[in-house]
Amino acid sequence: MPLDEGRKRFLKEDFERGFIHFCNIEAIEVGPGYFESAVKISDHHRQQDGFIHAGLLATMADHTAGYAAFTLVPEDHRILTIEFKINFLRPAFGERLVCKSQILRPGTWILVGESRVTDIRGGTEKEVARALVTLASVHKGRLSR
Amino acid sequence: MPLDEGRKRFLKEDFERGFIHFCNIEAIEVGPGYFESAVKISDHHRQQDGFIHAGLLATMADHTAGYAAFTLVPEDHRILTIEFKINFLRPAFGERLVCKSQILRPGTWILVGESRVTDIRGGTEKEVARALVTLASVHKGRLSR
Amino acid sequence: MPLDEGRKRFLKEDFERGFIHFCNIEAIEVGPGYFESAVKISDHHRQQDGFIHAGLLATMADHTAGYAAFTLVPEDHRILTIEFKINFLRPAFGERLVCKSQILRPGTWILVGESRVTDIRGGTEKEVARALVTLASVHKGRLSR
Amino acid sequence: MPLDEGRKRFLKEDFERGFIHFCNIEAIEVGPGYFESAVKISDHHRQQDGFIHAGLLATMADHTAGYAAFTLVPEDHRILTIEFKINFLRPAFGERLVCKSQILRPGTWILVGESRVTDIRGGTEKEVARALVTLASVHKGRLSR
Repeated sequence: MPLDEGRKRFLKEDFERGFIHFCNIEAIEVGPGYFESAVKISDHHRQQDGFIHAGLLATMADHTAGYAAFTLVPEDHRILTIEFKINFLRPAFGERLVCKSQILRPGTWILVGESRVTDIRGGTEKEVARALVTLASVHKGRLSR
Repeated sequence: MPLDEGRKRFLKEDFERGFIHFCNIEAIEVGPGYFESAVKISDHHRQQDGFIHAGLLATMADHTAGYAAFTLVPEDHRILTIEFKINFLRPAFGERLVCKSQILRPGTWILVGESRVTDIRGGTEKEVARALVTLASVHKGRLSR
Repeated sequence: MPLDEGRKRFLKEDFERGFIHFCNIEAIEVGPGYFESAVKISDHHRQQDGFIHAGLLATMADHTAGYAAFTLVPEDHRILTIEFKINFLRPAFGERLVCKSQILRPGTWILVGESRVTDIRGGTEKEVARALVTLASVHKGRLSR
Repeated sequence: MPLDEGRKRFLKEDFERGFIHFCNIEAIEVGPGYFESAVKISDHHRQQDGFIHAGLLATMADHTAGYAAFTLVPEDHRILTIEFKINFLRPAFGERLVCKSQILRPGTWILVGESRVTDIRGGTEKEVARALVTLASVHKGRLSR
């Protein structure tokens, strides 16, 4: 499956819906097995001590890995997260987060992605979280309740 | 450290700040090593296919385990998430999520909690996610950037 | 698929092969979606400081969850571990470990199990590790290299 | 703490004790925040279907990350695994495994490492597992039961 301009546009638009739109996370770049997103930090992204909430980092790490997987499957498939694990490497407190996700294992029905979240604070950038995400590729007709 | 009514009230109010307030997640119950939260699902909690976003479940699982830990540490300590792992057991699509977190290992500086998220749909309730969360208890004076 | 005596015997014997036999881990009990194993601790199971090695606990947690899954799939299927996560709750130093694994999500091709490892020391027993294990059920004809 | 030749020799020898010696896993290289190990595969490392057992890969991933952490802490400290997560990317069936571990977060008391396990089969080499390992650095006097 080549990743033509129309498909790239679709994936970037589809990325920014529902909870992701609500959280203000934006699609930045897409390539085969790769996706990059970013979020400009507002006060409502922080937790009680002023740090950016781990849940926002986890949401980015999961969703961005899901769309990295989405670049590798047939167009009539959908991606579901089976599980993920995320380590918080340093406190995040900057003004913008960037998440870069790469598929490590491109399978037909199981894909594994790695997400790296960096925090941009003043002029510097630090990795604040790393995640391993296990994803399933499922035909959209089988997405039942 | 006894968990008196004042402390319980503080923990429940403190729980619902920042990103958690933004996500509409509410504190329900608190006891020693235990915390329970819930969220009434709105459209902005869902993802592109109508399911509740994995990121919301992860945010609940993490934050609720953090407050279960918070019940066990001195009042001048804060809880940081070191890492967590979450398995999505079934698609979540109901009208309300409940998260119950229990501390499995009450340590002085490292605590481990388990979170179970259930989805309430019509009259039934199903476990949709289970997480293992590793937390650090840190004196508030050491919460530096 | 009922779990008759012949199938139970097969699963218990099949459990104790290869690396598991080498590590001296034994099958104890089997039921639908459930498996229990144990290992009598020898010096070669310990690490440099005298504690039982985390790798042995992880091996038990993974393998026992795999056989809990094996009780729920057709006889011509095999179980592969997709990933697992294990938290070490307390140091293990006793004379015997027991692992109890329960399937939390019995799916057709993805199953999720929880393993609890306890350490028996003198007369007491303590949970020393808890794991969440994601497993795939694959037809044996598709187990290719 | 510089990593002089005496310290390197000590770490490589200390690595190969107890369960690790029993499993035949050898130290290969050591540098600041880095450790590499290998194991020549024998029949007793395999599982019932002829693949190398996931428990061996997990043992390597955990222990090698632990020694990568050990290069960064004071000599009177010990490393304990708090938890780890490992994804099995492809079946492992070759004649030798190599594990390379790098510390991603060098903290005073919590360190996070990444381990990559590759399988050498004939002339080729494939990554078969990736792990994220959370480790604690503890003064040896506090290693109590």
